[in-house]
Amino acid sequence: MFRSSAFSGATHGFAPGYVQGNLAILPATLANDFLRFCQLNPKPCPLIGMSPRPGDPSIPELGADLDIRTDLPKYRVWRNGELAGEPLDIRDAWRDDLVAFVLGCSFSFEEALIEDGIELRHQACGSNVPMYRTNIPCAPSGPFRGPMVVSMRPLKPADAIRAVQITSRFPSVHGAPVHLGLPEGIGIKDIAKPDYGDAVEVKADELPVFWACGVTPQAVIAAVKPEFCITHAPGSMLISDLKNSRLAAL
Amino acid sequence: MFRSSAFSGATHGFAPGYVQGNLAILPATLANDFLRFCQLNPKPCPLIGMSPRPGDPSIPELGADLDIRTDLPKYRVWRNGELAGEPLDIRDAWRDDLVAFVLGCSFSFEEALIEDGIELRHQACGSNVPMYRTNIPCAPSGPFRGPMVVSMRPLKPADAIRAVQITSRFPSVHGAPVHLGLPEGIGIKDIAKPDYGDAVEVKADELPVFWACGVTPQAVIAAVKPEFCITHAPGSMLISDLKNSRLAAL
Repeated sequence: MFRSSAFSGATHGFAPGYVQGNLAILPATLANDFLRFCQLNPKPCPLIGMSPRPGDPSIPELGADLDIRTDLPKYRVWRNGELAGEPLDIRDAWRDDLVAFVLGCSFSFEEALIEDGIELRHQACGSNVPMYRTNIPCAPSGPFRGPMVVSMRPLKPADAIRAVQITSRFPSVHGAPVHLGLPEGIGIKDIAKPDYGDAVEVKADELPVFWACGVTPQAVIAAVKPEFCITHAPGSMLISDLKNSRLAAL
Repeated sequence: MFRSSAFSGATHGFAPGYVQGNLAILPATLANDFLRFCQLNPKPCPLIGMSPRPGDPSIPELGADLDIRTDLPKYRVWRNGELAGEPLDIRDAWRDDLVAFVLGCSFSFEEALIEDGIELRHQACGSNVPMYRTNIPCAPSGPFRGPMVVSMRPLKPADAIRAVQITSRFPSVHGAPVHLGLPEGIGIKDIAKPDYGDAVEVKADELPVFWACGVTPQAVIAAVKPEFCITHAPGSMLISDLKNSRLAAL
């Protein structure tokens, strides 16, 4: 359906149980530095698949017949850091030197939390998860550097403990929280004013719980302003053939 | 050394790496209800060994030649809820109807935390861990009922997350924390005034982290005022032949 451009919207709720991922496509001249950036910062940048070689649009580990140029609902093409278009496929923009990276996303661990009976405020509100720039620096690699961005979910303390247990099983989709309870400790001055997404209420009997977020590599790439780069359009993720449960470390 | 009564003090720091346990010895008339109480409340009452039958002073699962009447440094004998003596062995007090229960203690998970590089405030201060009665009711069994008692360790948020991961591996020594960050949520009005143990400072960049505590069954038994009962003297634990690492669930 995505390959034929019959659908160009958000993938949330599609193919429950299957891993969805963030897409970043970079020229080969930047790919090695970005790959090392992911390896140095696995919590915000959990790499779950990449091109076998520059110019190859397949990612066999994520789907037998996957073509990264057509199989997302919508893309964003960037030139020198400026948005240059939002095509529904990128066959016209494809180049022999491009390398695609797919990074795990929070949909997978949110599914595990919900299945355990933990309610997620932003979903109950029908809004985007609130995200914040922190004062936690990512380990730099070449031109890629910047602060970790985190997503926040308010949870009662017992649910926060359970959420640490559940998400620790999923290191390839951001894993355990990086922080909880004291926003100012990671440089968040006002929890009611997220840098991305929508604010949600943190009730008096709840703690804000913070996970490393896939917006981190997006913000880091944006700061580099590569001469050319392609990402998924917000919310229009790659849906893989992998089951979320197969990402569980134990 | 304990069997010969050559030492009658605290066991903290003895036999590093080996499981230490809390002791409760009850008449058979109460033993079934207490056993069920432990099964219903595994976090505060993690049973790691018990008498094979009433009157049998061995506990083979905790030590090949263990004699529960002689192998702790010091005991407390209670009659109708009143302290009746602190003998160094209990062969004189032993009866054919007594059943011994050994419950896991926090020494095992504290060792795992320290090995991971997490500093424990009460140990740094050379004081006893602070403990609090909560408003969390234990599931009752026969005459055994009452609130959960918790121990508290102040930790920085990232260490608190790591501590959840580490202690989750050890369900038979209290396991994961039951609460963190919001003392009033479990009925603790003043963190500076523990009900047992010594107060420790919670710094501005730390969260109080609460674990179910082995004082819970002691307080519950004390409230029942059994006609006869024997416990370890505070700090004078049973040292078993089990390695702490063997208690790890994974």
